[in-house]
Amino acid sequence: MVDGRPADLARLSLNTATTKRWTLEQAVEGAARAGLPAVGLWRDRVEEAGLERAARLVRDAGLRVSSLCRGGFLTAADPAGRSAALDDNRRAVEEAATLGTRDLVMVLGGLPEGDRDLLGARARAADALAELVPHAHEHGVRLLLEPLHPMYCADRAVLSTLDQALDVAGAHPAQDVAVVVDTFHVWWDPELEAAVARAGAEGRLGSYQVCDFLVPIAEDPLLSRGIMGDGVVDFAPVSRWVAAAGYGGDVEVEVFNAEVWASDGHEVLARVVERYAELVLPHL
Amino acid sequence: MVDGRPADLARLSLNTATTKRWTLEQAVEGAARAGLPAVGLWRDRVEEAGLERAARLVRDAGLRVSSLCRGGFLTAADPAGRSAALDDNRRAVEEAATLGTRDLVMVLGGLPEGDRDLLGARARAADALAELVPHAHEHGVRLLLEPLHPMYCADRAVLSTLDQALDVAGAHPAQDVAVVVDTFHVWWDPELEAAVARAGAEGRLGSYQVCDFLVPIAEDPLLSRGIMGDGVVDFAPVSRWVAAAGYGGDVEVEVFNAEVWASDGHEVLARVVERYAELVLPHL
Repeated sequence: MVDGRPADLARLSLNTATTKRWTLEQAVEGAARAGLPAVGLWRDRVEEAGLERAARLVRDAGLRVSSLCRGGFLTAADPAGRSAALDDNRRAVEEAATLGTRDLVMVLGGLPEGDRDLLGARARAADALAELVPHAHEHGVRLLLEPLHPMYCADRAVLSTLDQALDVAGAHPAQDVAVVVDTFHVWWDPELEAAVARAGAEGRLGSYQVCDFLVPIAEDPLLSRGIMGDGVVDFAPVSRWVAAAGYGGDVEVEVFNAEVWASDGHEVLARVVERYAELVLPHL
Repeated sequence: MVDGRPADLARLSLNTATTKRWTLEQAVEGAARAGLPAVGLWRDRVEEAGLERAARLVRDAGLRVSSLCRGGFLTAADPAGRSAALDDNRRAVEEAATLGTRDLVMVLGGLPEGDRDLLGARARAADALAELVPHAHEHGVRLLLEPLHPMYCADRAVLSTLDQALDVAGAHPAQDVAVVVDTFHVWWDPELEAAVARAGAEGRLGSYQVCDFLVPIAEDPLLSRGIMGDGVVDFAPVSRWVAAAGYGGDVEVEVFNAEVWASDGHEVLARVVERYAELVLPHL
């Protein structure tokens, strides 16, 4: 037992997107009841609850916030769009600081509507990120770049691999910009082992998120995420690589899945705990 | 004019999958009528037509076969499955030789049903490939490894990037094993420019296939391919990289798309020609 919790859940965090129908209050209560020490928060749930109240709810339940999700969408080509995105990201940084989490997850954004200039979009995202870093630094918030599966390259994230995320992060101090390893997004990458080691060596392995990849891909590809064990990901090697890279932080479970969302939150959480203990924890 | 054809189509090849409802005979006639010098053949259409007859039909129309599609699916874990796959691939090699094409496209296969050992599947595919190379060499056939989009990693191809394909090919002489660049599969890759240059430098840039990536992804992700200009791919930079790498071979158009398949073949071919001339050719 650690702090009154079963020791083996000491690093498990529930991302509120997994129990989408729960309010932030319900998610905090559910996580605490299941013995989890942490929650990963989406901004929409925080906004619903109210920022200060959200921070208090988590604190009062004795939990920590493993990350705030999400900033980003920095690829706009027009000055107004870019400026609006930066404003929104500055607010996200401040929200992360208020919630007491060091880490703001960043999904960099896809191609603007009708635009095919992928190289240009990547350059604009890197440029806007650079403008945001000092603000994050001032607030003690680390920006965590999340490479997304290449099937989302056009509409969600022009950042598709862990190495690419590390290349972008490399322009900034590691304390300010790091990366997320989300198994759903990177499991296929032939360079993954080396990239995870590189992230560790560079001090930029900021978050480990476990989520399965369902095949066939869901009709809405965003919802093709599954609870560990329900898809094709082999969590053993990836978890070993993450551990070997020195990662000792929280392990967040973030599942977008229509069937999971339709299920009882407590039952979902029980399944998450079971699969984490079986498929992930032994390799961490 | 080159050989009586408009010069600007001298490298354009129709893959028979684009005009799926056409028999091989119709595809050959359609391509010749549209002024194309080449066709890429799928084995099912060749089998329907009969191998010798297919070879004769193409030859008599004054066309060439840019590639035969496809061999591969070499990831079976059981000896019987492996042996059956190798037998089928040996036949495909012989078919390619009979059809007078140097190039057999290889899609290496996904994870066996219920198997999550991605590293193991990759190793088995490379091992089976090595067993096939001498047979291909004897028949003067080059095996073209095709990296597929990572969204097909589990069920189609454990080969997901051009660099990975080049790593696998590197165990064999360049005259025997080379790679395919299909824009649909690789457009998102942040390492693409460097990998294309590497393929050229290694003498392994065996085929350039142009096809767009449609967003949102089709309900059946296999059918999310589109005619150039209908999706998110920027053909200018990729075509320039391919040209700079020294590629002077055929440019094959292979589109799996329900709407395209439901359209009149001649109209589809006219659109392909128009888009090729507008979006690809100026950059080659």
